Amino acid sequence: MAVRLDLNISLDGVAMPTGQSPENPMGEDWGRLVEHYAATRTFQERVLHDSSGRGTTGVDDRYAAAYFEGIGAEIMGAGMFGLHAFSDDPEWRGWWGDEPPFGVPVLVLTHEKRAPIDFANGTRFEFLTASPGEALGRARDLAGGDDVRVGGGAGVARAFLAARLVDRLHVAIAPVVLGRGVRLWEDLRDLDRDYAVTSEVAESGVLHVTFAR
Amino acid sequence: MAVRLDLNISLDGVAMPTGQSPENPMGEDWGRLVEHYAATRTFQERVLHDSSGRGTTGVDDRYAAAYFEGIGAEIMGAGMFGLHAFSDDPEWRGWWGDEPPFGVPVLVLTHEKRAPIDFANGTRFEFLTASPGEALGRARDLAGGDDVRVGGGAGVARAFLAARLVDRLHVAIAPVVLGRGVRLWEDLRDLDRDYAVTSEVAESGVLHVTFAR
Repeated sequence: MAVRLDLNISLDGVAMPTGQSPENPMGEDWGRLVEHYAATRTFQERVLHDSSGRGTTGVDDRYAAAYFEGIGAEIMGAGMFGLHAFSDDPEWRGWWGDEPPFGVPVLVLTHEKRAPIDFANGTRFEFLTASPGEALGRARDLAGGDDVRVGGGAGVARAFLAARLVDRLHVAIAPVVLGRGVRLWEDLRDLDRDYAVTSEVAESGVLHVTFAR
Repeated sequence: MAVRLDLNISLDGVAMPTGQSPENPMGEDWGRLVEHYAATRTFQERVLHDSSGRGTTGVDDRYAAAYFEGIGAEIMGAGMFGLHAFSDDPEWRGWWGDEPPFGVPVLVLTHEKRAPIDFANGTRFEFLTASPGEALGRARDLAGGDDVRVGGGAGVARAFLAARLVDRLHVAIAPVVLGRGVRLWEDLRDLDRDYAVTSEVAESGVLHVTFAR
């Protein structure tokens, strides 16, 4: 049972661009961070439900496929679920439509009280107020021996990393300089000393760096 | 005639660690940034003058060798030459002993007036007060058609990058998180849009990213 975290960042470490709005909830630069991922066959199949065989099948796709394998539960922040952008909407069910690409219990960290939401594909959103460690205990119970994924956003990711709760961190570094936004690496001095770090470059030019312990 | 810049940075973009002192002039983390470079055969030969064949000969060494090729003049900041650490010493001749590994004119940007210093191997330090553009004009005159290198430190590097005076930027990213120091990428939003960016991973795990135009 490992705790896994996958993030898309820029060369300057931006994990969450600024400029979010209800119309553009991930910020205007978000597309530059995830372009390589959105181009993969795995993304086409798993997120867009397009099984026509579209999409890249190289290194980026290998990481994309691994992202979906062996996860028994997920933890995410309120912002990633959309509670900040849509806090007035009690009917908000997340960004992902009727088939959220999880298929497992998802714990959403929030101070708001909301009833759980169940989807036909096995995705269940549960809302709770908890520390990273407490949330991880609950996620482990739900994961049935499979891995737990910390889904993000950047603030939640950094909190789990700072507490050294993550067993495998994979960052896909897009070769772009954004210059503004929430940076992943702040306050994580010497993180690498607790892990073995490996790297490879994808056909897209994206750098995949993995911290594993 | 191209303007070239090579830098060693951490995953979190630190180009100049904090903690400099006269005893440890580059800061305590500096060794973690340049370990792969100091291990190369080129560094052993060109900087330590050890021609016994010691040192690595892989990807890191290829970049190290390219670093020394085709340079006709260099520009560096006062701190890199050592004027901040040794500002009271009018006899200070740089960190590099009697054979500084340049062999060409080196322009040191400083507000101090100092007489030029000549070495037998062709290295000549000239001290001048100038903007990046002015210094580059002088360096071009001295380079005799060869390339000009911006040697650093981090502040000088960023000034030349911000003014888009650099034709080829090579960053060697050590897979470490330092968490403190001067970051290369600040205020360089969209730098990548002016260049073609390519990457490769060395045997050491260091990521070599090149911006070329």
